[in-house]
Amino acid sequence: MISEQFFQSEKEFVSWLRKRTTGRVRGVRLGIGDDAALARISSGAEIVATTDLLIEGVHFATSLHPPESVGHRALARSLSDVAAMGAVPKYALVALALSRRASRRWVESLYEGMLKLARRYRVSILGGDTACYSGKTLLDVAMIGEVARGKALLRSGAKPGDRIFVAGTLGLSAWGLELLKAPAKRETVHEALRAHLYPEPQCALGQYLAKEKLASAAIDVSDGLSTDLHRLCEASGVGARLWADRIPRPHAPANDRLQARLLQWALCGGEDYRLLFTVPPTKVNRIPSSFRGVRIHPIGEVCSADRGVLMQENGANRVIVPRGYDHFRKSRSRPTHS
Amino acid sequence: MISEQFFQSEKEFVSWLRKRTTGRVRGVRLGIGDDAALARISSGAEIVATTDLLIEGVHFATSLHPPESVGHRALARSLSDVAAMGAVPKYALVALALSRRASRRWVESLYEGMLKLARRYRVSILGGDTACYSGKTLLDVAMIGEVARGKALLRSGAKPGDRIFVAGTLGLSAWGLELLKAPAKRETVHEALRAHLYPEPQCALGQYLAKEKLASAAIDVSDGLSTDLHRLCEASGVGARLWADRIPRPHAPANDRLQARLLQWALCGGEDYRLLFTVPPTKVNRIPSSFRGVRIHPIGEVCSADRGVLMQENGANRVIVPRGYDHFRKSRSRPTHS
Repeated sequence: MISEQFFQSEKEFVSWLRKRTTGRVRGVRLGIGDDAALARISSGAEIVATTDLLIEGVHFATSLHPPESVGHRALARSLSDVAAMGAVPKYALVALALSRRASRRWVESLYEGMLKLARRYRVSILGGDTACYSGKTLLDVAMIGEVARGKALLRSGAKPGDRIFVAGTLGLSAWGLELLKAPAKRETVHEALRAHLYPEPQCALGQYLAKEKLASAAIDVSDGLSTDLHRLCEASGVGARLWADRIPRPHAPANDRLQARLLQWALCGGEDYRLLFTVPPTKVNRIPSSFRGVRIHPIGEVCSADRGVLMQENGANRVIVPRGYDHFRKSRSRPTHS
Repeated sequence: MISEQFFQSEKEFVSWLRKRTTGRVRGVRLGIGDDAALARISSGAEIVATTDLLIEGVHFATSLHPPESVGHRALARSLSDVAAMGAVPKYALVALALSRRASRRWVESLYEGMLKLARRYRVSILGGDTACYSGKTLLDVAMIGEVARGKALLRSGAKPGDRIFVAGTLGLSAWGLELLKAPAKRETVHEALRAHLYPEPQCALGQYLAKEKLASAAIDVSDGLSTDLHRLCEASGVGARLWADRIPRPHAPANDRLQARLLQWALCGGEDYRLLFTVPPTKVNRIPSSFRGVRIHPIGEVCSADRGVLMQENGANRVIVPRGYDHFRKSRSRPTHS
């Protein structure tokens, strides 16, 4: 049921949104309000394009996630894909299929969350499509970025002998979701909750790696290290060996059960949006130990494909299988998707 | 419930789709399979960007629309927006939130319908996102086109005295939907059904009008003439007078009740995807009577804003109000949306 406070018409909604998106005009010739938007791309640049769904009941729950977080996360997913290409995000198109249960306040807060993140990354929302219907709320954010020709980071360039790095902590978002479902008050909670509700894509790091030609391959960890490392290895035609004790997990009490879960979340938790990249041996010493306050961790090395993907733990090698979320298998209900 | 025949994993689905989208490489540096796609835009061009939702139960019904039609229509909506800008469609991103009731065959046919249309318009499907979930099937197609700088057709350039044209027949899609719900066998049925199930966007005409600088304003009629003409008038700050007897309706028996409904469908029916455009008096004689087999009809003239939007019928002027579908009003259940 539409709240009395809801937008009276699509026209009123578009007018409301338009007011909030003007002023962000970098490269935009024509924004919301015509059949399509017009924008510019730098000469000598290629466009980078990606699209990401965020679905009620799959990627978020209205009972758990405040609308600002839903808007933030919808945009963050695409931003992280652009980051993994080493590209500069520029323009977003937002499609919103809105449950008739949603209130005007909820929709406004969703856009506030999205626009706040967009402003920080200097992304203009060029346009979109919106419909109210009797189903679940669903967002699709398409993003267009740009990168100098031939400079994009791909998944496919890793070579045996390359070092594997990850920027920041893994598993924090999955822990945050767990805590969101059963609230607590500790300091680590805040860090994990923030990582889950308001993940920070690593665009500046991606651009740095691309510009300096430091990474041989890169991917963002959105479906868990095990799944995304497999994707990178498959695209590059290589294998990998991870060092279990070097995989960066959240700080937590020395509780064996919790520590095991943290490793599990690092391997299989989704939505961390940390960059995973490989670096040739000759360039390893050029990788800083931290970038803009985020630590960069060496976590393993690239091997030949016939070795598969292994993890060295307590002196033994364990085979790592991709265990992240797969929508086609319906094997897990945790919200996450590439 | 997922059919036994369904894709076993997201990877299998991506691999299936990838095979069907390779070969369409105009400008594509990197297609489906990395974090994002890479593509080129012609130098001196601006990008045109749009996104359109197609929702089960709103824009289509699995009981009425074959999957090929669903795929075709999802892409046609965005193509028509690009056509209305006078731009060349280039790249599409396809987000598909798939009901768990869908079979593999249904999904394959949906993509076949989409890819067939994409090939004809030389559009490359750059990438996308796909999720299976317990809700309704929903597609969002984002499209990127290009147009020479300063050549795009906008809604905002109409001036009093300009002639109003429409290319092709209006109301055919709404009639087709009516017939789809209650099948019949007459020849006009086939024309109306085809217009509804497989609408043909008018990209070549839009590009011609832009290149020759013939149109002062343009929009595609996706929500009915009454609604879309209002949008053009509002963007241009003008009014309009339509000539009722010149509005092109489908050929049908001289049955008063049917004729009245055909005029109603022409004014308020959705999804015709015909171009509506205005032409300055000095250029009217350069508008051909038909373009690629589609007749171009003069249907009225632009007036000053204070006259509003009127229709001259039987010697009297009738006020035309926007009566197309508005998702925010929930006033009508017919599938259509801009």
